Amino acid sequence: MNMEDIIIKKRDGGTLTSDEIKYFVKGYTAGDIPDYQASALLMAIYFQHLDKAETFQLTDAMRCSGDTIDLSGISGTKVDKHSTGGVGDKTTLIVGPLAAACGVTVAKMSGRGLGFTGGTVDKLDSIPGFSTSMEPAAFMAQVESIGIAVTGQTGHITPADKKIYALRDVTGTVENMSLIASSIMSKKLAAGSDAIVLDVKCGGGAFMKNLSDAQELSRIMCEIGESAGRKTVAVITDMSQPLGCAVGNALEVREAIDVLSGHGPADITELSLRLAGVMICLGGNLDAGTGSMATSGANAVPNAGAGLVDGTALARQAIDAGVALARQALDSGAGLAKLRELIAAQGGDPTVVDDPSKLTIAKVAVDVVADGAGYVCEIDAERIGIASQHTGAGRARKEDDIDYGAGVLLHKKVGYPVRPGEVLATVYSGNAHKAEAAAAEVKAAFRIGEGKPEMPILIKDIIS
Amino acid sequence: MNMEDIIIKKRDGGTLTSDEIKYFVKGYTAGDIPDYQASALLMAIYFQHLDKAETFQLTDAMRCSGDTIDLSGISGTKVDKHSTGGVGDKTTLIVGPLAAACGVTVAKMSGRGLGFTGGTVDKLDSIPGFSTSMEPAAFMAQVESIGIAVTGQTGHITPADKKIYALRDVTGTVENMSLIASSIMSKKLAAGSDAIVLDVKCGGGAFMKNLSDAQELSRIMCEIGESAGRKTVAVITDMSQPLGCAVGNALEVREAIDVLSGHGPADITELSLRLAGVMICLGGNLDAGTGSMATSGANAVPNAGAGLVDGTALARQAIDAGVALARQALDSGAGLAKLRELIAAQGGDPTVVDDPSKLTIAKVAVDVVADGAGYVCEIDAERIGIASQHTGAGRARKEDDIDYGAGVLLHKKVGYPVRPGEVLATVYSGNAHKAEAAAAEVKAAFRIGEGKPEMPILIKDIIS
Repeated sequence: MNMEDIIIKKRDGGTLTSDEIKYFVKGYTAGDIPDYQASALLMAIYFQHLDKAETFQLTDAMRCSGDTIDLSGISGTKVDKHSTGGVGDKTTLIVGPLAAACGVTVAKMSGRGLGFTGGTVDKLDSIPGFSTSMEPAAFMAQVESIGIAVTGQTGHITPADKKIYALRDVTGTVENMSLIASSIMSKKLAAGSDAIVLDVKCGGGAFMKNLSDAQELSRIMCEIGESAGRKTVAVITDMSQPLGCAVGNALEVREAIDVLSGHGPADITELSLRLAGVMICLGGNLDAGTGSMATSGANAVPNAGAGLVDGTALARQAIDAGVALARQALDSGAGLAKLRELIAAQGGDPTVVDDPSKLTIAKVAVDVVADGAGYVCEIDAERIGIASQHTGAGRARKEDDIDYGAGVLLHKKVGYPVRPGEVLATVYSGNAHKAEAAAAEVKAAFRIGEGKPEMPILIKDIIS
Repeated sequence: MNMEDIIIKKRDGGTLTSDEIKYFVKGYTAGDIPDYQASALLMAIYFQHLDKAETFQLTDAMRCSGDTIDLSGISGTKVDKHSTGGVGDKTTLIVGPLAAACGVTVAKMSGRGLGFTGGTVDKLDSIPGFSTSMEPAAFMAQVESIGIAVTGQTGHITPADKKIYALRDVTGTVENMSLIASSIMSKKLAAGSDAIVLDVKCGGGAFMKNLSDAQELSRIMCEIGESAGRKTVAVITDMSQPLGCAVGNALEVREAIDVLSGHGPADITELSLRLAGVMICLGGNLDAGTGSMATSGANAVPNAGAGLVDGTALARQAIDAGVALARQALDSGAGLAKLRELIAAQGGDPTVVDDPSKLTIAKVAVDVVADGAGYVCEIDAERIGIASQHTGAGRARKEDDIDYGAGVLLHKKVGYPVRPGEVLATVYSGNAHKAEAAAAEVKAAFRIGEGKPEMPILIKDIIS
């Protein structure tokens, strides 16, 4: 087998065999196949596409390229949740505790942020004392005892994906559904959960700019998941503006606490309940005795997970029942209690949950003020993400340090009326120059119009 | 400007600007743009093509990437001849002396062979004492004094093309008309001649497998040449079987001497006369007094070259007149005399022309014998070329040594009748094992059938 023949076969519209795909992934990961042949193949794939079988095989080859996590020692159905990346997306901090409070087993590996999107690990690191670096045994034990643990990714998960993604990023070969889907799903499959809830972001601030692309990506990812025996559901959600009001690590933790306390922004609250509801659905076949909510969850949603295994669409009714359980966990404070438990278990100061002022917010605060009157018609999520990165809250390169207290807090969202001089947002930074520059970017991200705009639909579709 | 944007622009079907093309060629040649981005762009070009202007600009950027030869110090119209590469193609050794004997100025830079095709420099190196390494001043002086010089390419001609070609060769991006045309023409333009005759090979043993592809490539190359102010004519010729009977360096020099002596194989003789005729046409505006044949050539074909500059098709009549002059130079022995002069001028033993047995042929000779009776229906040129390479006559890698006396001599060509036991070909090598292995390959290249096959048309088209 020879890489040049594989490139030419795909270039000419051929279907690669499982062996050819393995040869490429293995050889490239090992450094035997040079970057220039890999990028030529990726560009040929961009034009000639991968079919379903090739996509499954590529995903599997990348999954097997490094360590795979075995969670079978933990009892119950382990449910993972993954977001394709957005601005202000702190749902893991809310959804994880809510689902765990309802008896779902959440063994979560999260990433750090890069560019204009944040990462859950960075957000958790902003909690005093919290450790996101755990030995596998400790991780397993914590999931077993409190139903949830969140750790950073190990260095040996899907090295093939890391290498291929880095290459795609600089060779104009990112925008291919099969390559995007296999990149995400190889990591999720390697992470070992039994079921996966995908939050596929859609809109200006997301990778998928329109609904039909988001639907196609969702379908491919669900098919990959199902083909690997993992129940997979994709929830397509709006990212035409930032999610919630807080963008930046400590600011987002504070907002997550607000949501779990029952007084968070409406959009992030609604989305979190929905995602938690789907997780509860998928993790519904709980062993009796895992906890009272869990048992009631399992009873309330009989065989929801099993239904998905059969490939049938997840019934809205079952999701609604899951959402109702999540809502109970929110209203009763069980979700907040689970977050407190999670923070304590991982060495953090659990009292931040009761007194969020213990989270350090950057000292310099610059308000962004409206010039004219009207309605907020648009908040460019990507520009807000970039502005937040420029406050110091994000990284341009992997090795950059970040300012956990920096970021952007929106006071107005799309559809809000504004008067001249009203504060649209506040920018926080440890550095006054950075804050001023970011404030100008935030201002440019807002579009104020005369008429009240149509409100974006938060949950656009659910695919399973 | 940034390479990733350029890749994406071409990937999405955009037209690259002259600056973008220069940025790529300059940056890649300098090592600032990595191989993996260059190969991604080349694959995008494979799918999205380059238009005429982009192709001209790419050619020009590659032409300017290294030294360009200034032949303006040599009087007369300098005419170059280039073959796209075939098996047994020793026409330069015949056409150069014939054209020079007719007063055409031939300042030729040639290459070495790689893979299954040979190179003129290797062939000349098989002549005892002949030197293909000349200082520019000596090269110019020789062209001025005897009308012809043949040297190896300098290391600084079109380094961009060398680097890009090497990358294309291993990334499945060879087969694109614009890339092929710009690669050939950048070298030809840098080599400084005023007019260019292209011998575009067509058939199984050539890069262009069919006539319409060969025509398209020819048209693009002629357009590039004309856009750069060089009169350019492409002659599309058959490469469905090897040209002539000899394949291998000393064997080919011997056959070239045979042709110039009037008793060479018919196909190579006919093709050589035709190519020399076109060169005479293009170089026809000779200064009076360069030589009697030259002057008569100029008189016989008035303004033939000037007609081409206007972009009109080269008149068949003008070519026929050129061919008639070339035929005179062959019949009179003037062509052979010019070869003798060339060899002497470059330090070789000129008596090989009168006694070709002074050319060393490899000691081991293995005959390839026909099993059955019939007609030779096919001789796979590429397989013969590979067999010749395996005798030691060619290189697999640039740094390989070659056996100048090795090669393949065909005794039967397509259309010849054969009887069982008749010798089809003889394989020569310094090594008995290599000779045996190559003989088996040569045998496999022959297809003997019952009926007399249609004879291939040697000259398929002339494009200007």
